[in-house]
Amino acid sequence: MLRIRTASVEEVPSLLEMILEFATFEKLREEVTITEAMLARDGFGSRPRFRTLIAEWDGAVAGYAICFPIYSTFQGPALFLEDVYVRPQFRDKGIGKAMIGEVAAMALREGCGALRWEVLAWNQPAIDFYKRLGAIFLDDWMAVRIEGEALRRLAEQSNA
Amino acid sequence: MLRIRTASVEEVPSLLEMILEFATFEKLREEVTITEAMLARDGFGSRPRFRTLIAEWDGAVAGYAICFPIYSTFQGPALFLEDVYVRPQFRDKGIGKAMIGEVAAMALREGCGALRWEVLAWNQPAIDFYKRLGAIFLDDWMAVRIEGEALRRLAEQSNA
Repeated sequence: MLRIRTASVEEVPSLLEMILEFATFEKLREEVTITEAMLARDGFGSRPRFRTLIAEWDGAVAGYAICFPIYSTFQGPALFLEDVYVRPQFRDKGIGKAMIGEVAAMALREGCGALRWEVLAWNQPAIDFYKRLGAIFLDDWMAVRIEGEALRRLAEQSNA
Repeated sequence: MLRIRTASVEEVPSLLEMILEFATFEKLREEVTITEAMLARDGFGSRPRFRTLIAEWDGAVAGYAICFPIYSTFQGPALFLEDVYVRPQFRDKGIGKAMIGEVAAMALREGCGALRWEVLAWNQPAIDFYKRLGAIFLDDWMAVRIEGEALRRLAEQSNA
Protein backbone atom coordinates (compact mmCIF):
# COMPACT_ATOMS: atom_id res chain seq x y z
CA MET A 1 0.00 0.00 0.00
CA LEU A 2 1.53 3.29 -1.22
CA ARG A 3 1.49 6.57 0.66
CA ILE A 4 3.22 9.75 -0.51
CA ARG A 5 3.75 12.51 2.02
CA THR A 6 5.91 15.52 2.81
CA ALA A 7 9.18 14.80 4.63
CA SER A 8 9.96 16.21 8.08
CA VAL A 9 13.32 17.45 9.35
CA GLU A 10 13.66 14.35 11.55
CA GLU A 11 13.95 12.32 8.35
CA VAL A 12 17.07 14.09 7.08
CA PRO A 13 19.37 11.14 8.00
CA SER A 14 17.13 8.76 6.04
CA LEU A 15 16.97 11.26 3.17
CA LEU A 16 20.77 11.57 2.99
CA GLU A 17 21.03 7.78 3.01
CA MET A 18 18.75 7.62 -0.06
CA ILE A 19 20.61 10.48 -1.79
CA LEU A 20 23.81 8.45 -1.38
CA GLU A 21 22.11 5.32 -2.74
CA PHE A 22 20.87 7.35 -5.71
CA ALA A 23 24.30 8.90 -6.36
CA THR A 24 25.87 5.42 -6.23
CA PHE A 25 23.32 4.17 -8.77
CA GLU A 26 24.17 7.17 -10.99
CA LYS A 27 27.92 6.41 -10.62
CA LEU A 28 28.37 9.87 -9.08
CA ARG A 29 28.99 8.92 -5.44
CA GLU A 30 32.28 10.87 -5.39
CA GLU A 31 30.43 14.09 -6.33
CA VAL A 32 28.34 14.13 -3.15
CA THR A 33 29.54 16.65 -0.58
CA ILE A 34 26.17 17.48 0.98
CA THR A 35 25.68 16.92 4.71
CA GLU A 36 22.72 16.35 7.01
CA ALA A 37 23.23 19.87 8.38
CA MET A 38 22.97 21.40 4.89
CA LEU A 39 19.84 19.43 4.01
CA ALA A 40 18.19 20.40 7.32
CA ARG A 41 19.09 24.07 6.89
CA ASP A 42 18.17 24.33 3.20
CA GLY A 43 15.10 22.12 3.00
CA PHE A 44 13.35 22.49 6.34
CA GLY A 45 13.84 26.09 7.53
CA SER A 46 11.45 29.04 7.32
CA ARG A 47 12.16 29.56 3.59
CA PRO A 48 13.04 26.14 2.25
CA ARG A 49 15.04 25.98 -1.00
CA PHE A 50 13.46 22.66 -1.96
CA ARG A 51 10.52 20.41 -1.09
CA THR A 52 10.80 16.74 -0.25
CA LEU A 53 8.26 13.99 -0.76
CA ILE A 54 8.68 10.57 0.82
CA ALA A 55 7.07 7.44 -0.63
CA GLU A 56 6.09 4.78 1.90
CA TRP A 57 5.21 1.22 0.92
CA ASP A 58 3.43 -0.66 3.72
CA GLY A 59 4.99 1.79 6.17
CA ALA A 60 8.58 1.37 4.92
CA VAL A 61 10.48 4.28 3.31
CA ALA A 62 10.60 3.28 -0.37
CA GLY A 63 11.86 6.42 -2.10
CA TYR A 64 11.89 10.21 -2.30
CA ALA A 65 11.42 13.10 -4.69
CA ILE A 66 12.85 16.61 -4.40
CA CYS A 67 11.68 19.62 -6.39
CA PHE A 68 11.84 23.42 -6.37
CA PRO A 69 10.45 26.34 -8.40
CA ILE A 70 12.30 27.60 -11.48
CA TYR A 71 11.39 30.19 -14.10
CA SER A 72 11.30 30.39 -17.87
CA THR A 73 11.48 33.92 -19.25
CA PHE A 74 9.74 32.54 -22.36
CA GLN A 75 6.87 30.74 -20.61
CA GLY A 76 6.76 31.65 -16.93
CA PRO A 77 6.79 29.58 -13.72
CA ALA A 78 7.79 25.92 -13.74
CA LEU A 79 8.90 23.26 -11.26
CA PHE A 80 12.22 21.44 -11.43
CA LEU A 81 12.34 17.81 -10.32
CA GLU A 82 15.84 17.50 -8.92
CA ASP A 83 15.62 13.85 -7.85
CA VAL A 84 13.16 11.01 -8.00
CA TYR A 85 14.44 7.74 -6.52
CA VAL A 86 12.86 4.41 -5.66
CA ARG A 87 14.83 1.85 -3.66
CA PRO A 88 15.59 -1.35 -5.66
CA GLN A 89 13.33 -3.64 -3.58
CA PHE A 90 10.34 -1.32 -4.20
CA ARG A 91 10.60 -0.97 -7.98
CA ASP A 92 7.95 -1.96 -10.56
CA LYS A 93 5.09 -0.90 -8.28
CA GLY A 94 4.45 2.47 -9.96
CA ILE A 95 6.02 4.40 -7.09
CA GLY A 96 8.24 6.58 -9.30
CA LYS A 97 5.34 7.50 -11.56
CA ALA A 98 3.14 8.24 -8.55
CA MET A 99 5.76 10.60 -7.10
CA ILE A 100 6.24 12.39 -10.42
CA GLY A 101 2.43 12.63 -10.60
CA GLU A 102 2.35 14.31 -7.18
CA VAL A 103 4.94 16.84 -8.32
CA ALA A 104 2.98 17.41 -11.55
CA ALA A 105 -0.18 18.06 -9.50
CA MET A 106 1.78 20.48 -7.30
CA ALA A 107 3.01 22.27 -10.44
CA LEU A 108 -0.52 22.72 -11.80
CA ARG A 109 -1.91 23.85 -8.42
CA GLU A 110 0.77 26.57 -8.31
CA GLY A 111 0.18 27.81 -11.84
CA CYS A 112 3.32 26.28 -13.34
CA GLY A 113 3.16 25.49 -17.05
CA ALA A 114 5.83 22.80 -17.08
CA LEU A 115 7.84 20.30 -15.08
CA ARG A 116 11.54 20.04 -15.96
CA TRP A 117 14.24 17.58 -15.00
CA GLU A 118 17.45 15.95 -16.26
CA VAL A 119 18.30 12.33 -16.98
CA LEU A 120 21.64 10.62 -17.49
CA ALA A 121 22.11 9.91 -21.20
CA TRP A 122 23.08 6.25 -20.51
CA ASN A 123 19.98 5.53 -18.42
CA GLN A 124 17.86 4.15 -21.26
CA PRO A 125 15.15 2.58 -19.03
CA ALA A 126 14.54 6.01 -17.45
CA ILE A 127 14.55 7.71 -20.86
CA ASP A 128 11.99 5.19 -22.20
CA PHE A 129 9.85 5.65 -19.10
CA TYR A 130 9.86 9.46 -19.44
CA LYS A 131 8.98 9.16 -23.14
CA ARG A 132 5.97 7.02 -22.25
CA LEU A 133 4.83 9.82 -19.91
CA GLY A 134 4.87 12.23 -22.86
CA ALA A 135 8.07 14.10 -21.92
CA ILE A 136 9.97 16.15 -24.51
CA PHE A 137 13.76 15.80 -24.74
CA LEU A 138 15.48 19.17 -25.23
CA ASP A 139 18.25 17.85 -27.47
CA ASP A 140 19.21 21.34 -28.70
CA TRP A 141 20.42 22.41 -25.28
CA MET A 142 23.67 21.76 -23.40
CA ALA A 143 23.91 22.04 -19.62
CA VAL A 144 26.81 24.12 -18.30
CA ARG A 145 28.28 24.52 -14.80
CA ILE A 146 30.97 26.73 -13.36
CA GLU A 147 32.31 26.20 -9.86
CA GLY A 148 35.36 26.36 -7.60
CA GLU A 149 38.33 28.43 -8.75
CA ALA A 150 36.73 29.35 -12.10
CA LEU A 151 33.65 30.70 -10.28
CA ARG A 152 35.80 32.75 -7.91
CA ARG A 153 37.85 34.17 -10.80
CA LEU A 154 34.67 35.17 -12.61
CA ALA A 155 33.24 36.81 -9.49
CA GLU A 156 36.44 38.75 -8.84
CA GLN A 157 36.62 40.34 -12.28
CA SER A 158 33.23 41.90 -11.56
CA ASN A 159 34.81 43.93 -8.74
CA ALA A 160 37.81 45.01 -10.80
CA MET B 1 30.95 53.36 -19.57
CA LEU B 2 29.31 50.20 -18.13
CA ARG B 3 26.94 50.09 -15.19
CA ILE B 4 25.18 46.95 -13.95
CA ARG B 5 22.21 47.38 -11.63
CA THR B 6 19.05 45.70 -10.42
CA ALA B 7 15.96 46.20 -12.58
CA SER B 8 12.81 47.90 -11.27
CA VAL B 9 9.20 46.96 -12.07
CA GLU B 10 8.86 50.07 -14.28
CA GLU B 11 11.35 48.45 -16.65
CA VAL B 12 9.23 45.37 -17.35
CA PRO B 13 8.21 46.63 -20.83
CA SER B 14 11.88 47.15 -21.76
CA LEU B 15 12.72 43.73 -20.26
CA LEU B 16 10.04 41.96 -22.30
CA GLU B 17 11.33 43.72 -25.42
CA MET B 18 14.82 42.30 -24.77
CA ILE B 19 13.43 38.82 -23.97
CA LEU B 20 11.72 38.87 -27.38
CA GLU B 21 14.95 40.01 -29.07
CA PHE B 22 16.80 37.19 -27.31
CA ALA B 23 14.16 34.59 -28.28
CA THR B 24 14.34 35.76 -31.89
CA PHE B 25 18.13 35.39 -31.84
CA GLU B 26 17.67 31.86 -30.43
CA LYS B 27 15.13 31.05 -33.17
CA LEU B 28 12.55 30.39 -30.45
CA ARG B 29 10.32 33.45 -30.85
CA GLU B 30 7.22 31.27 -31.28
CA GLU B 31 7.81 29.68 -27.85
CA VAL B 32 7.37 32.97 -25.98
CA THR B 33 4.02 33.28 -24.22
CA ILE B 34 5.14 35.40 -21.28
CA THR B 35 3.48 38.78 -20.70
CA GLU B 36 4.42 42.01 -18.96
CA ALA B 37 1.87 41.16 -16.24
CA MET B 38 3.53 37.78 -15.56
CA LEU B 39 7.01 39.29 -15.42
CA ALA B 40 5.83 42.04 -13.05
CA ARG B 41 4.02 39.56 -10.79
CA ASP B 42 6.76 36.91 -10.74
CA GLY B 43 9.90 39.04 -10.67
CA PHE B 44 9.00 42.14 -8.71
CA GLY B 45 6.56 41.13 -5.97
CA SER B 46 7.22 40.47 -2.27
CA ARG B 47 8.72 37.02 -2.99
CA PRO B 48 10.23 37.27 -6.46
CA ARG B 49 10.82 34.05 -8.39
CA PHE B 50 13.78 35.53 -10.23
CA ARG B 51 16.22 38.46 -10.08
CA THR B 52 16.96 40.78 -12.95
CA LEU B 53 20.13 42.72 -13.69
CA ILE B 54 20.21 45.47 -16.31
CA ALA B 55 23.44 46.50 -18.07
CA GLU B 56 23.65 50.14 -19.09
CA TRP B 57 26.25 51.46 -21.53
CA ASP B 58 26.57 55.24 -21.40
CA GLY B 59 23.06 55.35 -19.95
CA ALA B 60 21.43 53.19 -22.65
CA VAL B 61 19.93 49.78 -21.80
CA ALA B 62 22.42 47.34 -23.35
CA GLY B 63 21.32 43.97 -22.00
CA TYR B 64 19.96 41.95 -19.10
CA ALA B 65 20.59 38.87 -17.01
CA ILE B 66 18.04 36.82 -15.06
CA CYS B 67 18.88 34.25 -12.39
CA PHE B 68 17.25 32.35 -9.52
CA PRO B 69 18.30 29.88 -6.80
CA ILE B 70 18.35 26.15 -7.51
CA TYR B 71 19.53 23.18 -5.44
CA SER B 72 21.76 20.17 -5.95
CA THR B 73 21.08 17.30 -3.56
CA PHE B 74 24.69 16.24 -4.20
CA GLN B 75 26.37 19.60 -3.57
CA GLY B 76 23.90 22.07 -2.08
CA PRO B 77 22.77 25.58 -3.10
CA ALA B 78 23.51 26.96 -6.57
CA LEU B 79 22.29 29.76 -8.83
CA PHE B 80 20.77 29.22 -12.26
CA LEU B 81 21.45 31.80 -14.96
CA GLU B 82 18.26 31.68 -17.00
CA ASP B 83 19.22 34.39 -19.52
CA VAL B 84 22.16 36.60 -20.31
CA TYR B 85 21.64 38.85 -23.32
CA VAL B 86 23.55 41.78 -24.84
CA ARG B 87 21.97 43.80 -27.64
CA PRO B 88 23.88 43.52 -30.95
CA GLN B 89 25.09 47.13 -31.00
CA PHE B 90 26.67 46.70 -27.53
CA ARG B 91 28.60 43.48 -28.13
CA ASP B 92 32.39 42.97 -27.81
CA LYS B 93 32.63 45.34 -24.86
CA GLY B 94 32.77 42.64 -22.16
CA ILE B 95 29.20 43.33 -21.03
CA GLY B 96 28.11 39.67 -21.09
CA LYS B 97 31.13 38.58 -19.08
CA ALA B 98 30.58 41.43 -16.61
CA MET B 99 26.96 40.39 -16.06
CA ILE B 100 27.93 36.74 -15.56
CA GLY B 101 30.61 37.99 -13.15
CA GLU B 102 27.98 39.88 -11.14
CA VAL B 103 25.84 36.73 -10.93
CA ALA B 104 28.92 34.69 -9.92
CA ALA B 105 29.67 37.21 -7.15
CA MET B 106 26.03 36.99 -6.00
CA ALA B 107 26.33 33.18 -5.94
CA LEU B 108 29.46 33.27 -3.75
CA ARG B 109 27.98 35.89 -1.39
CA GLU B 110 24.97 33.62 -0.84
CA GLY B 111 26.99 30.47 -0.19
CA CYS B 112 26.29 28.84 -3.55
CA GLY B 113 28.89 26.38 -4.77
CA ALA B 114 28.09 26.64 -8.47
CA LEU B 115 26.47 28.63 -11.24
CA ARG B 116 24.49 26.61 -13.80
CA TRP B 117 22.98 27.51 -17.16
CA GLU B 118 22.12 26.08 -20.58
CA VAL B 119 23.36 26.95 -24.05
CA LEU B 120 21.98 26.08 -27.48
CA ALA B 121 24.13 23.34 -29.01
CA TRP B 122 24.47 25.31 -32.29
CA ASN B 123 25.67 28.49 -30.61
CA GLN B 124 29.40 27.78 -30.99
CA PRO B 125 30.59 31.33 -30.17
CA ALA B 126 28.74 31.15 -26.84
CA ILE B 127 30.11 27.64 -26.16
CA ASP B 128 33.68 28.82 -26.85
CA PHE B 129 33.16 31.86 -24.63
CA TYR B 130 31.88 29.73 -21.74
CA LYS B 131 34.81 27.31 -22.14
CA ARG B 132 37.24 30.24 -21.84
CA LEU B 133 35.55 31.14 -18.54
CA GLY B 134 36.33 27.64 -17.24
CA ALA B 135 32.80 26.22 -17.50
CA ILE B 136 32.20 22.47 -17.53
CA PHE B 137 29.80 20.98 -20.09
CA LEU B 138 27.58 18.28 -18.59
CA ASP B 139 27.49 16.10 -21.68
CA ASP B 140 26.18 13.05 -19.79
CA TRP B 141 22.86 14.74 -19.02
CA MET B 142 19.73 15.25 -21.11
CA ALA B 143 17.19 17.97 -20.31
CA VAL B 144 13.56 16.85 -20.15
CA ARG B 145 10.29 18.81 -20.04
CA ILE B 146 6.68 17.79 -19.64
CA GLU B 147 3.87 20.27 -20.20
CA GLY B 148 0.30 20.77 -21.45
CA GLU B 149 -1.91 17.71 -21.80
CA ALA B 150 0.86 15.26 -20.78
CA LEU B 151 1.41 17.22 -17.55
CA ARG B 152 -2.32 17.23 -16.77
CA ARG B 153 -2.58 13.49 -17.43
CA LEU B 154 0.34 12.81 -15.11
CA ALA B 155 -1.14 15.03 -12.38
CA GLU B 156 -4.54 13.34 -12.62
CA GLN B 157 -3.24 9.80 -12.13
CA SER B 158 -1.86 10.96 -8.78
CA ASN B 159 -5.44 11.56 -7.57
CA ALA B 160 -6.73 8.20 -8.82
